[in-house]
Amino acid sequence: MKINRNFDNLVPNYLFAEIAKKTSAYAAAHPDEKLIRLGIGDVTLPLPRTAVQAMKIGAGELSLKETFKGYPEYEGYDFVREAVAKYYAGFGVTVGADEVFISDGAKSDTGNIGDIFGADNVVMVPDPVYPVYVDANIMAGRKIIYAPGTREKRFLPMPDESVHADIIYLCSPNNPTGAAYDAEQLKAWVDYANQHDAIILYDAAYEAFIEDDCPRSIFAIDGARTCAIEFCSLSKTAGFTGVRCGYTVIPKELARDGHNIHALWYRRQATKFNGVSYPVQCAAAAVFSQEGQKEFKANIAYYKENARIISKALDELGIFYTGGKNSPYIWLECPKGMGSWEFFDDLLENAQVVGTPGEGFGSQGKGHFRLTSFGDRENTIEAIERIKKILR
Amino acid sequence: MKINRNFDNLVPNYLFAEIAKKTSAYAAAHPDEKLIRLGIGDVTLPLPRTAVQAMKIGAGELSLKETFKGYPEYEGYDFVREAVAKYYAGFGVTVGADEVFISDGAKSDTGNIGDIFGADNVVMVPDPVYPVYVDANIMAGRKIIYAPGTREKRFLPMPDESVHADIIYLCSPNNPTGAAYDAEQLKAWVDYANQHDAIILYDAAYEAFIEDDCPRSIFAIDGARTCAIEFCSLSKTAGFTGVRCGYTVIPKELARDGHNIHALWYRRQATKFNGVSYPVQCAAAAVFSQEGQKEFKANIAYYKENARIISKALDELGIFYTGGKNSPYIWLECPKGMGSWEFFDDLLENAQVVGTPGEGFGSQGKGHFRLTSFGDRENTIEAIERIKKILR
Repeated sequence: MKINRNFDNLVPNYLFAEIAKKTSAYAAAHPDEKLIRLGIGDVTLPLPRTAVQAMKIGAGELSLKETFKGYPEYEGYDFVREAVAKYYAGFGVTVGADEVFISDGAKSDTGNIGDIFGADNVVMVPDPVYPVYVDANIMAGRKIIYAPGTREKRFLPMPDESVHADIIYLCSPNNPTGAAYDAEQLKAWVDYANQHDAIILYDAAYEAFIEDDCPRSIFAIDGARTCAIEFCSLSKTAGFTGVRCGYTVIPKELARDGHNIHALWYRRQATKFNGVSYPVQCAAAAVFSQEGQKEFKANIAYYKENARIISKALDELGIFYTGGKNSPYIWLECPKGMGSWEFFDDLLENAQVVGTPGEGFGSQGKGHFRLTSFGDRENTIEAIERIKKILR
Repeated sequence: MKINRNFDNLVPNYLFAEIAKKTSAYAAAHPDEKLIRLGIGDVTLPLPRTAVQAMKIGAGELSLKETFKGYPEYEGYDFVREAVAKYYAGFGVTVGADEVFISDGAKSDTGNIGDIFGADNVVMVPDPVYPVYVDANIMAGRKIIYAPGTREKRFLPMPDESVHADIIYLCSPNNPTGAAYDAEQLKAWVDYANQHDAIILYDAAYEAFIEDDCPRSIFAIDGARTCAIEFCSLSKTAGFTGVRCGYTVIPKELARDGHNIHALWYRRQATKFNGVSYPVQCAAAAVFSQEGQKEFKANIAYYKENARIISKALDELGIFYTGGKNSPYIWLECPKGMGSWEFFDDLLENAQVVGTPGEGFGSQGKGHFRLTSFGDRENTIEAIERIKKILR
């Protein structure tokens, strides 16, 4: 029997393992120093109360014969799909409830969606990039090309007419760079995809952090319904990283290669997925209620104030960065021409602050560094004071 | 861009749609008659109280900053993995907690596991068969061969040395036939797999229904650790069809084609999965507690008494069947030489009982029929009385 040889082409990513190793070695050698972690990509505030209540009620329904629920629909319960469609309507974007697939998270779906596409497509990913897009496509044996995000482009790669791609991953606001496309930039990608018969896989996991007029959905753009699939998640919107719920939107009219894409994905899910936990779906629907939205927006405001504090310090220090505004991430150019691991060591040893070296996200990440706003307010302030002290 | 052309080879399975259509047409034409459904493959008894309580406590922990949980481990929390290993030990099978991957259900994993295997492997599936094994491998473009289950073999296909397979799906107790392999039969499969350098994908979703000395795990068989992966689920064990939790066991020493299979699956999950909901994992661990086991065993005993009632009637009628003992399913030969849809119509029109025509599960299902024990006691008894009446 043969294993999938494409796995041999995966490059081991030691980024987070290496960070953990260096950090614990430092901590062991300096037990009295207080380390502050500004590298984490996971939320820290508790779940909205509305979501927890709904989950408990959902669990309770399963304990009575009269209200017991068995297998959910592959595509999710209608009450959640309708709540998602209404949430979109709330920021002016129309999607049908029947175009929404409830998932266990955007990560699963951005990976598994490849099941419905041929192995001979060319996949374009931004660089720097969320590693999952790359690894899932290496596993499937697809050719991967990179759209470089550079300082000049403020880390927002734009389409190049002379380069052909069949599948394009975009993430806006971006992880790791925090940069968000405006409507005009997204329109250029939509036009490119329609012209090239390509599909955009649009990861909108951080849409809830957008505060200006950048689109919160690719479906805000004319023409997107004939070329795009959108993935979103409650992980960062409402702190669902441990609850696991997301959604994928596929317009009914999206077709490629003589096939309806919505129907293909439904077929894939019917075969290899069995729907999302009922109590989790109850929690998800509650998040989109008026009360739920009020609660999660308060949490996002908290993280965004952290981001503002970090950005302000970088402004004062004259350090170039993207993000910090429409995003929980701040992506900065390492000062004094340092490499990203060099800056990591500098921060760890001299400020006792842990961040994430940019080169772990791709070649364009060299000399860059990611900080996140998911920490405590107090710790964020203290970390920034320490950073200012060593960089001034 | 090209879609995955293997989807063109999927045969639409209209089985359940056709059942639903015929049933509702009959119900509409006969509004005063009481239909009884003995075709359902979903549980109906409520969740064990222990599981519901644990899920509520888990949800509650997410509502406080001090006990909040973010991203779970891809392979599941240690407390659940240890509970699963202890459950195995309870019926005399040793698996390491670190060999257990917590999943959102056996269906997802029996499908997704294909990601780590090459497309050029030959896949052997039993006939009749749970359609997911077939469809997931058609999507991946693999050649599928069938191991026929016949009346002579009591619907337990055995290996044929002259036929080579690389990947073998086995399900015991079987869906749809209810037949369970004994240790000697499983040993023959294990020996075949080791000799043929093949991997057995063993679906043990119904193991909790075993009441005699049939193995509850393939790992009860000598040699299985070098050729088998086991999938299990709390769906039928503890009524988790709507909660979504299962587990996959891969021995650390299982290797093929120069690769460690446990490591490959971990890599796959790390890339395309983000773990199971924390409150769901809490519920799963509770199921394996002493109290949880007592509760779910009572539910299984209820279903099994239904199965006994159905089996007894078939014995009286002199109808050949498999299952009914170690399984919630009863797989019977249609009486009077009827075809499976013919018998479906007969039962619907003359006894107002809905079952499942066997030919929906494969060519060997022709002339056979599946009844399930997941209904109410009262309705099961009434359905059986009606069936006896028309068949006597």
